Amino acid sequence: MQKSLFIIKIGGNVLDDPRSLDQFLDHFAGLPGHKILIHGGGKIATRIGTQMGLEPQYIDGRRITDAATLQLVTMVYGGLVNKQIVAQLQCRNCNAFGVTGADGNLITAVRRPAGAIDFGWVGDPTREMVHKKSIKALLESGFCLVFAPLTHNGTGNMLNTNADTIAAVLAQALAKDFQVKLLYCFEQEGVLEKDAGGNLKIVPELTPAIKNKLKEKGDLSGGILPKIDNALATAAAGAALVWIGNSARAGSFAKTDHVPGTVVKT
Amino acid sequence: MQKSLFIIKIGGNVLDDPRSLDQFLDHFAGLPGHKILIHGGGKIATRIGTQMGLEPQYIDGRRITDAATLQLVTMVYGGLVNKQIVAQLQCRNCNAFGVTGADGNLITAVRRPAGAIDFGWVGDPTREMVHKKSIKALLESGFCLVFAPLTHNGTGNMLNTNADTIAAVLAQALAKDFQVKLLYCFEQEGVLEKDAGGNLKIVPELTPAIKNKLKEKGDLSGGILPKIDNALATAAAGAALVWIGNSARAGSFAKTDHVPGTVVKT
Repeated sequence: MQKSLFIIKIGGNVLDDPRSLDQFLDHFAGLPGHKILIHGGGKIATRIGTQMGLEPQYIDGRRITDAATLQLVTMVYGGLVNKQIVAQLQCRNCNAFGVTGADGNLITAVRRPAGAIDFGWVGDPTREMVHKKSIKALLESGFCLVFAPLTHNGTGNMLNTNADTIAAVLAQALAKDFQVKLLYCFEQEGVLEKDAGGNLKIVPELTPAIKNKLKEKGDLSGGILPKIDNALATAAAGAALVWIGNSARAGSFAKTDHVPGTVVKT
Repeated sequence: MQKSLFIIKIGGNVLDDPRSLDQFLDHFAGLPGHKILIHGGGKIATRIGTQMGLEPQYIDGRRITDAATLQLVTMVYGGLVNKQIVAQLQCRNCNAFGVTGADGNLITAVRRPAGAIDFGWVGDPTREMVHKKSIKALLESGFCLVFAPLTHNGTGNMLNTNADTIAAVLAQALAKDFQVKLLYCFEQEGVLEKDAGGNLKIVPELTPAIKNKLKEKGDLSGGILPKIDNALATAAAGAALVWIGNSARAGSFAKTDHVPGTVVKT
């Protein structure tokens, strides 16, 4: 039987609240088997950027990673946030190892081509750009990997990379080698839809057909759509479980896979 | 026969000058066998600290690592400097892996006890605090480790740590497992002494007796003394070679161990 591998992405709501982060790390450390954590940056990069006098750059409302922003996220995500999480997991007897895609060449990416917008130093990896031999060697050495949302282009530059995408391509690349459980943790209880009375309720199971129905109803907007697309692609790639839900519930997966939230299936 | 392991420490003079760094990384990538690079932070931490409005804290002229400074060095050394070096080595076909002592629990340290001065979040590791099983596993997986000058206390905190000391304790811990060559690279051509005419010349070989003689003459002052003490302790621990010299010469070790500079022996 294949070994299990939790791949868990946490968002800014956890990182920005020390009590939520503490609680999440307690739960994460208690999960059995191999584990990979992917973190975003939360509000701290913006706060430190402001302290440094950096103005966030936008084109048509989309955030641009100019050279100064790349330096900012490399130090804040790859250094401050990553190492604080690692040190906190180490004191919970979890042998955490902080990485970016550049370290050990674990994940390369291609700089997003400039179309109508040039997003700057942003990289989009695919599952083929995950070098799984090294990742497997690290997991089998007993390390729990903690990924900052950064990759590299292989020609000397770091690239700012969406944490949801990193989680998805890792899960897709490793789905044949482990019993992969991808958990997208965020501030909501799952994917939400409006019922007939206009109240929000959790969508317990999400398939491509249900996604299309919800999209037509106008229930899916903003950041949730790319997350769902990543989740669906990962389910299709053979992950054992793909779940979207609240970070406070992640610890329940130590005992059962039936945890309130949205299960994504093909 | 034991495998060779280069442990090379570079100082701020290399980091602060893009051309010197480029040249050094070319040479480093060309060295054969296992390799560990330890970098300091150079002036960039001070520059970013100033941009953020942080005032460096001193007591009796000694720099203090208060909580804000610890955050600064964790992000600048552990994130920005470390990942830029890793990405630059990766594009030179060197499978670099950036780490701090916290990652994989590679090096713990004890916070320096507050005596006349409380240095703050500063850690002093010993060779016994190097967890060499994990380091050996990483080297044997084909990774070249790039250490930022940071350790952790095992109870959740990062610690600012002298890069010379990290290089020394790594070399001491691994001296029985590899043919360790410790190279301390800095801006000078080696340890210097004044000849009878008052001109500076390189000390080609340094032993404890020669160190004491030079110290009495007043030729050793400031940062060179702790470096020499680290070097002597590492030679005594059985390193195959301990060398202090100019970073521009490090590449010569690809061909010969006889490189102008100071060889430290017991």
